[in-house]
Amino acid sequence: MKVLSPPPRLLMGPGPINCYPRVLAAMSTQLVGQYDPVMTGYMNEVMALYRQVFNTQNEHTVLIDGTSRAGIEAVLVSCIEPDDKVLVPIFGRFGYLLAEIAERAGADVQTIEVPWGEVFDPQQIEDAIKRVKPKVLAMVQGDTSTTMLQPLDEIGEICRRLDVLFYCDATASIGGNPLLTDEWQLDAVSVGLQKCLGGPSGSAPITLSPRYVDRVMKRHHIEAGIRDPHHQQARGSKIRSNYFDIPMILDYWGKERLNHHTEAATMLYCARECAINLLDEGPHRVIARHQTAGAAMLAGIQAMSLKPFGNIEHKMSNVVGVVIPDNVNGEAIRQELLLNFNIEIGTSFGPLKGKIWRIGTMGYNARQDTVLHTLQSLETVLRRAGFNLAEAGAGVDAAMHIYGGGE
Amino acid sequence: MKVLSPPPRLLMGPGPINCYPRVLAAMSTQLVGQYDPVMTGYMNEVMALYRQVFNTQNEHTVLIDGTSRAGIEAVLVSCIEPDDKVLVPIFGRFGYLLAEIAERAGADVQTIEVPWGEVFDPQQIEDAIKRVKPKVLAMVQGDTSTTMLQPLDEIGEICRRLDVLFYCDATASIGGNPLLTDEWQLDAVSVGLQKCLGGPSGSAPITLSPRYVDRVMKRHHIEAGIRDPHHQQARGSKIRSNYFDIPMILDYWGKERLNHHTEAATMLYCARECAINLLDEGPHRVIARHQTAGAAMLAGIQAMSLKPFGNIEHKMSNVVGVVIPDNVNGEAIRQELLLNFNIEIGTSFGPLKGKIWRIGTMGYNARQDTVLHTLQSLETVLRRAGFNLAEAGAGVDAAMHIYGGGE
Repeated sequence: MKVLSPPPRLLMGPGPINCYPRVLAAMSTQLVGQYDPVMTGYMNEVMALYRQVFNTQNEHTVLIDGTSRAGIEAVLVSCIEPDDKVLVPIFGRFGYLLAEIAERAGADVQTIEVPWGEVFDPQQIEDAIKRVKPKVLAMVQGDTSTTMLQPLDEIGEICRRLDVLFYCDATASIGGNPLLTDEWQLDAVSVGLQKCLGGPSGSAPITLSPRYVDRVMKRHHIEAGIRDPHHQQARGSKIRSNYFDIPMILDYWGKERLNHHTEAATMLYCARECAINLLDEGPHRVIARHQTAGAAMLAGIQAMSLKPFGNIEHKMSNVVGVVIPDNVNGEAIRQELLLNFNIEIGTSFGPLKGKIWRIGTMGYNARQDTVLHTLQSLETVLRRAGFNLAEAGAGVDAAMHIYGGGE
Repeated sequence: MKVLSPPPRLLMGPGPINCYPRVLAAMSTQLVGQYDPVMTGYMNEVMALYRQVFNTQNEHTVLIDGTSRAGIEAVLVSCIEPDDKVLVPIFGRFGYLLAEIAERAGADVQTIEVPWGEVFDPQQIEDAIKRVKPKVLAMVQGDTSTTMLQPLDEIGEICRRLDVLFYCDATASIGGNPLLTDEWQLDAVSVGLQKCLGGPSGSAPITLSPRYVDRVMKRHHIEAGIRDPHHQQARGSKIRSNYFDIPMILDYWGKERLNHHTEAATMLYCARECAINLLDEGPHRVIARHQTAGAAMLAGIQAMSLKPFGNIEHKMSNVVGVVIPDNVNGEAIRQELLLNFNIEIGTSFGPLKGKIWRIGTMGYNARQDTVLHTLQSLETVLRRAGFNLAEAGAGVDAAMHIYGGGE
């Protein structure tokens, strides 16, 4: 029981995926104190790094100490007052999650939906905003449950024009697909590290526009146990969560340096390394690498006469849904891949449970060798399970062709 | 900017402290998928390990993915319904935090207080419970702001007799002081890793009694995006937070394995290693090591003619408050220790800000060498700042005496 020695899995599901080696190494770095100038220096570096990752000038770009849904909840609970109208366009499981989190924060949540496997046209969003008149629009950029990527470039303009705060969860998409926070006029974005950024789950970078921050600072409070006589009076209704109270979190990350939580230093080291890794390689190159790996995986799947799920024109670069063929036991195939080939691919949720596999090519694993091994192994396992493949080796050959390996 | 290479600080404040080397090493372990049998196996191991750490048979012993205050908020928000009465006996800053978190969860919070530096007599708690008639009693075991350790052994019996749920935050005390969850009849306990358990902040182990679980399972829900037709109907009012919804978290850790967050695997590896480290050395031996280191530090401080803060009969083993002498600039001394000696000691909060230092001897740093270096360095820095010490070397000699080094 005692030795921590997990098998060397190749994680080709929808995330988490294998961490970059330098990210793993960073996490074994010894700590410094939370107000050590070295630590506050690292916090400032992380803010600067994630401004680049998010393509933003937003001063308020910090980490929430928790998994990606902690970032979602922090952004929503801090900007929602009870009975505020929140509009959530849903195109997969994570849209439901945003609606659920907003509802628990006390919002009057209205949703619109498209079938799983599709995305919204901006006009649908504009029409719904005009009808519902929400204070906040909350939607995901990439919903891993369906693999779809919602185009966002026109939606921010609609929100500004109609005076709606625009929040986006980009956990599944960031790093592997463009995300232009300022150009697209996003007011708040939250992500996680465990997809294309190549870290583990457990830290949620967020970026907040001045518009968002102005709104939440109207509910600024300081805890009783640390309040000094010189501190400003509290104002506005208290945010419903202490842990996710963004004005308090900004007081901790900002020049006030007021104690809130104790920053999870190891996960901060990790988040810092994930960002540096991305910026060192170059964000455009990383996206291109994901596009190539995703195209190779898609080509391989199709060449094996398997059918990708949904409207693949709107697929994220980093994950593909594969329709499980009739008469194939999807879970048995996954099990075989995992236990005999050390390769993990994903299952799915809700209406797609048991109907599609999800195969990711993310972060460190957006590589030629991982794509080739996965396709070969999937072919072997399907063949041995009696599934009639189009042609032996067709999948891996199609993927090599994308990588310039010719026929 | 890029190379992560913090200075080798010796962290002798109230936490975080230096991690055990094996804990650091565990955190650079590569990931497996969240439903990999290896991962769910590790989750089960963590549950079993923390039952031993908490001295409990509670089946429901899991991690909350966040810092220690995430554990506090999860326990409180899940068991509080709006307007429930919650009684919080306050003897320092963290009592205020519990009150604040309970209030934000919608509770009608009533508090009682003793002066900072003291603890409660069980009779005071019983009288207050009879007057307030709360559903929940929430208090900390050790409040690092004052260094005091609240005796808990009689309070659980009072709570059972008067039908009150008893929650305790033992973040600062666990590992270095006894904590007998079942024997003391605690219904819920939450902790963090960054004190005597010798890890970083970022994971909050909790343990929940069947009484607590029965109560929160009356508000059991399953997210819309993952709900199957065979799932039981939702019941009760929704808990105000999704992230901290303990019934959902138990569905993820339990045999249902329903997706909630993506478990922060690195922090789970870390929590696992912290527990194994404690159990390998032996919980009684670890407490004894903290008692010796704490006694040595206290003896050294007193021999240097410095005055410990508060009622030292009720001091935690692992931290001492030191009254900053008149005419001494406490922050300048701390700065000098940090920048020239690489040793961090702590400042304090609220009414004690600038009045006491807090010196910790926790986890990996509850050692003779760390105590001796800290006392010597403090002496040097005070001497050079013009403070008139009783006798050169008196502090380090007194500490060596505790360690059996004679005079």
